Amino acid sequence: MKKIRLGIIGYGAEGGLYASFFKEKKLSENLKLTAVCDIDIEKEKKVKESFPDIKFFKNYKDMLDSGLVDAIVTTVPHYFHCEMGIEAIKRGIHLLGEKPAGVYTKDVKRLIKVSEEHPDVTFAIFFNQRTNPLYRKVKELMDNKVIGNMRRTVWIITTWWRPQGYYNQSEWRATWGGEGGGVLVNQAPHQLDLWQWICGKPKKVFAKMAFGFKRDIVVEDEVNALVDFGNGVTGSFITCTHDILGTDYFEILGDKGKIIVENSKKLTIKTLKKDEEILSNDMSMEDVIKLFKGQLDPEEMYDEEVLEFDSRHGEQHINVLENFAAHILNGDPLLAAGREGINGVRLANAMHLSAWLGKEVNYELNEREYLDLLNNRIRKEGKYEEKQ
Amino acid sequence: MKKIRLGIIGYGAEGGLYASFFKEKKLSENLKLTAVCDIDIEKEKKVKESFPDIKFFKNYKDMLDSGLVDAIVTTVPHYFHCEMGIEAIKRGIHLLGEKPAGVYTKDVKRLIKVSEEHPDVTFAIFFNQRTNPLYRKVKELMDNKVIGNMRRTVWIITTWWRPQGYYNQSEWRATWGGEGGGVLVNQAPHQLDLWQWICGKPKKVFAKMAFGFKRDIVVEDEVNALVDFGNGVTGSFITCTHDILGTDYFEILGDKGKIIVENSKKLTIKTLKKDEEILSNDMSMEDVIKLFKGQLDPEEMYDEEVLEFDSRHGEQHINVLENFAAHILNGDPLLAAGREGINGVRLANAMHLSAWLGKEVNYELNEREYLDLLNNRIRKEGKYEEKQ
Repeated sequence: MKKIRLGIIGYGAEGGLYASFFKEKKLSENLKLTAVCDIDIEKEKKVKESFPDIKFFKNYKDMLDSGLVDAIVTTVPHYFHCEMGIEAIKRGIHLLGEKPAGVYTKDVKRLIKVSEEHPDVTFAIFFNQRTNPLYRKVKELMDNKVIGNMRRTVWIITTWWRPQGYYNQSEWRATWGGEGGGVLVNQAPHQLDLWQWICGKPKKVFAKMAFGFKRDIVVEDEVNALVDFGNGVTGSFITCTHDILGTDYFEILGDKGKIIVENSKKLTIKTLKKDEEILSNDMSMEDVIKLFKGQLDPEEMYDEEVLEFDSRHGEQHINVLENFAAHILNGDPLLAAGREGINGVRLANAMHLSAWLGKEVNYELNEREYLDLLNNRIRKEGKYEEKQ
Repeated sequence: MKKIRLGIIGYGAEGGLYASFFKEKKLSENLKLTAVCDIDIEKEKKVKESFPDIKFFKNYKDMLDSGLVDAIVTTVPHYFHCEMGIEAIKRGIHLLGEKPAGVYTKDVKRLIKVSEEHPDVTFAIFFNQRTNPLYRKVKELMDNKVIGNMRRTVWIITTWWRPQGYYNQSEWRATWGGEGGGVLVNQAPHQLDLWQWICGKPKKVFAKMAFGFKRDIVVEDEVNALVDFGNGVTGSFITCTHDILGTDYFEILGDKGKIIVENSKKLTIKTLKKDEEILSNDMSMEDVIKLFKGQLDPEEMYDEEVLEFDSRHGEQHINVLENFAAHILNGDPLLAAGREGINGVRLANAMHLSAWLGKEVNYELNEREYLDLLNNRIRKEGKYEEKQ
């Protein structure tokens, strides 16, 4: 049986985690780790200790040209995701890109274009949360219109607490030029992807952010966004890295019910026995008065199901790696096709642009305007080159 | 002992409720019902059946001039709150105004001005929720900085379900000229008042609304607002009348903890043992890694208290009436001074103006602009006179 020979670019926390799956034999025969790359040569010793048979590269292009890898995963700072992905795909090497797909849509589009020119090369993205059974269930419920069409959605996701020490770890972290943003670029991309995957793409975006609100950083550690899906349907998305008592509350109201997800563990599904508008139109004033007086039990009007989920750490990442390999080898459908990675990036870009301009912007944002305002910040920061 | 002779203007659902307190002897000796007024003469019979000794008036000015009342309560359509209040105070008659104080700030300011010219006449407002022990507790916690300064607040209050039949009851309901708005003017003023009472007044307001979203009405039945308190502190306020599975979730994040109120019944207070910024600055990277791996229990960093409240229907209204009388007779501090009623009205006005203009506006809104846009809608509706 053929194996996919995988190379990991970037041997930090995430790259190290993926490598550990091979050491601990958690992956199937479909995948084999054959190379690791990191610009920090100190890492070579660490890699060799754990994986004596693996080739270490300092330059990722040397790895791509070595003939040792069929596929790569890019656990590197976000700005490199697109550049490295393009170089891999051009060489016929399959790409499992880390999230986010890139920092800005213009860059991601270049990657998608190259991918389209190489249809035989797999381009997947590491949205491990899409393998989470809870969110797969919510996606299925929404796709099957179990609660009808969406009326509103709210996600308060402030469980991304990061202390100052975390930001002080690496020079590039939480900078405009090195990372391209804060919580929206680093932590919340999981939920930005899930939100639009489950609830759809908005038309307009308004966001308030605070930059260096409660941390000594220049990028956003606090975001409150209000998006417009059209026809009166809106959504709120709230995230931050300064809430040690993090809230994770996700609600979707539909024409026929409501879905509530608490702490990414508990899923409550309330389905109305009739469409809400029918209930509204058919109720007599006598019943209305009874309802207001608490003499009519609204629980008679709906069914409720509560599901509890437990997801083990690392499991999701293994699922993504396995799916990537099974797609290349057997044509299994991808959990997250690479081109879908642009949606969450666009949402983050639109939120940044709205916050910078102080007004509502289109989800299909003006990319030139976004990049100009980002480059203004990179220039002011004075540590990194401007982006193209 | 002197009694306050009370007149009720408007014998509808609310006016009838207040009258019932007298019939059922739920009020103290401080208050006596002496007159009722309603433009609908059919109501006279109903009033006489329950209260044979009470004088019925068709015209509220006749009641004010009758010498039979020391104080009034105005359970009438919102546009009349200011006009009737002004007429009462001018005559030295104490006013317990129904919420909202008025439909628009310009009108409420006229009422406040007259009230200031008559400092001996009591002007209170019927914010019964301010007597709710749960919200009094939250107010006390915030005033005493138990969770420090506020970082963000969210209130999803969609328990105001109203079916189409409710809107069809009266001609004036859910019209621009007769009511002045939808859920923000009729149902949510309670929470608009509590929100700013507890969390403070914002500086800027952005709101999305849907008018006749899921009901056959011209005003808003769906609101999603994002307000800015300055210095990075924001708030979200979400309300509607089309969610039969209503959510009531109110959260305040502070520098030293978090307050969560669920269903206006359950209050969770999480207080950090140290300020969050101190925790952030003091945590070693070893502990950060432990925390991420789930090896450090964040529960060691805070204390949690859960309080359950049960509030009986009607009780709050009785408390407001008693407080009003005790203020007049004994100088007890008012639960809600009338002039404070303008804050919630301003919040609602700013939300409307923002939604109409499609942009963020100042909380201290342009009243002329608001009134022009309101009058445009009243003119188009063609049923009522424009407002001044």
